[in-house]
Amino acid sequence: MEILIVGGAGAMGQWFARFFVERGEAVYILDPRPDSRSIAEELGAAVVDRQKLSDADVVLISVPIDVAPSVIKDTAPVLKDGALLMDITSIKRSPVDAMRSAIKGRNLEGLSVHPLFGPTTEMMKKQTVIFVPVRSGRLSYWIEQTFREAGAHIEYMEADEHDRLMAVVQGLTHFVYITFGQTLRALGFDIEGSRRYMSPIYEIMTDFVGRVLHQDPRLYGLIQMNLDLGKIHETFINEACRLSEIVKEGDIERFVEEILASRRHFGDTSRSMAASDRLVNFKVKEDD
Amino acid sequence: MEILIVGGAGAMGQWFARFFVERGEAVYILDPRPDSRSIAEELGAAVVDRQKLSDADVVLISVPIDVAPSVIKDTAPVLKDGALLMDITSIKRSPVDAMRSAIKGRNLEGLSVHPLFGPTTEMMKKQTVIFVPVRSGRLSYWIEQTFREAGAHIEYMEADEHDRLMAVVQGLTHFVYITFGQTLRALGFDIEGSRRYMSPIYEIMTDFVGRVLHQDPRLYGLIQMNLDLGKIHETFINEACRLSEIVKEGDIERFVEEILASRRHFGDTSRSMAASDRLVNFKVKEDD
Repeated sequence: MEILIVGGAGAMGQWFARFFVERGEAVYILDPRPDSRSIAEELGAAVVDRQKLSDADVVLISVPIDVAPSVIKDTAPVLKDGALLMDITSIKRSPVDAMRSAIKGRNLEGLSVHPLFGPTTEMMKKQTVIFVPVRSGRLSYWIEQTFREAGAHIEYMEADEHDRLMAVVQGLTHFVYITFGQTLRALGFDIEGSRRYMSPIYEIMTDFVGRVLHQDPRLYGLIQMNLDLGKIHETFINEACRLSEIVKEGDIERFVEEILASRRHFGDTSRSMAASDRLVNFKVKEDD
Repeated sequence: MEILIVGGAGAMGQWFARFFVERGEAVYILDPRPDSRSIAEELGAAVVDRQKLSDADVVLISVPIDVAPSVIKDTAPVLKDGALLMDITSIKRSPVDAMRSAIKGRNLEGLSVHPLFGPTTEMMKKQTVIFVPVRSGRLSYWIEQTFREAGAHIEYMEADEHDRLMAVVQGLTHFVYITFGQTLRALGFDIEGSRRYMSPIYEIMTDFVGRVLHQDPRLYGLIQMNLDLGKIHETFINEACRLSEIVKEGDIERFVEEILASRRHFGDTSRSMAASDRLVNFKVKEDD
């Protein structure tokens, strides 16, 4: 199979280039960045120019969210008949809309994919990959089989459903970790110094705060701005204010009732207790 | 050594009863709850009444934060000369103040300890225990040695310093996890259904949200109410509002600058990246 990755020198582009090279496919990289050639060589892929787009069987768009729709729009017209156009953007509404328009009246397959993992993930095994099919066919099926054979857990969804769900799963989670980091800065809190006094749950919280701060801030910003987060931010801030008020009033009975209500809504908290115990025990034992 | 645990039938009381029994010490439990006797038998300890307080070498107070100061006050006068009075309350200012007054003019040792772990922790090995000495002596030293031999990491601090630090380490961390849980409830979000689409960082976030909701809500409430959290809650809420505003305005450059500033304040984020990768990989591999 000839697979061309637009943005293949980026972190996730490289991840997928390596993935397909390891499976014996011919991988081509189209990327304007100056070090594309050396990156491609290291990966066992070849750097190509736009002309190669019309030869590829699969064209995978791996570019930032804000440019993905226009890259999809510009790419589709030059693809050969029967080719698959796919993207791996973290949000789905705008790229799926762009893909739907771009392949209209053309003999192309369209598949919008969201791999729920980042570039530091070693393998696809057990990772969740969300598939939003736009127009399926033989090549979409081949991608699905390839991902399944690599151990991926695949879920099919609609773009709207995906974005609504990700507004909480990604949007709220990132928002909370980033806000925690902003708060530590605003308080001038000595994070390094606090390491000696860490409780495991604080330690794991700060591991993830640091993780989010370490990675591409533009990607996090674009995810926040492209998911419909208004209501979710508002709800989170309201709940923080409400809880803080209860604490200020010293109303312990009310505090207990609120937690019990959240516990009932949460569902099986004993499972979370066991899962978090395993994480804590792993953390305690790992530097033995 | 004769060790008497006031509140020894509670979760942490049992933990320390077991700890000392395993080390061959004579452990006595003073606890009003009706099932104290069967709990004590199972632990290899003996249930006693208040009279026994005057025999014990070490009296360990393991009661809720809100009653700890009065229990300390009522206990000290009946202890024998040279005994050690200690508590394991999660906050330190009020029990230390109470202990200081209670042992004044008496020949008693005083030690206020905060074990930074919960009752589901298997061993003391590698766990942090904070020591706030009130009046040290031979028995305080014996406790320290016993904890060290069990592998504890011991840190000495003043009560004020402890409570200021814990306002962030415990207070803010719990506050954030609880607020996340309240938000999921307010949104009516289907947590069980979201498990199929979890990213690892959301999965670990929800593991800890569920953990906090699963445990004693009164303890979390008392920690919130006894640490000086006003300014910290306010800062967190302000930062959430500020970040949400930047997202609403779609100001990606500002968003990036804010994250970069928090990254600089955070310090070594690559260490957090590596630590969180290990947690994620553990989670992915654990049900192999």
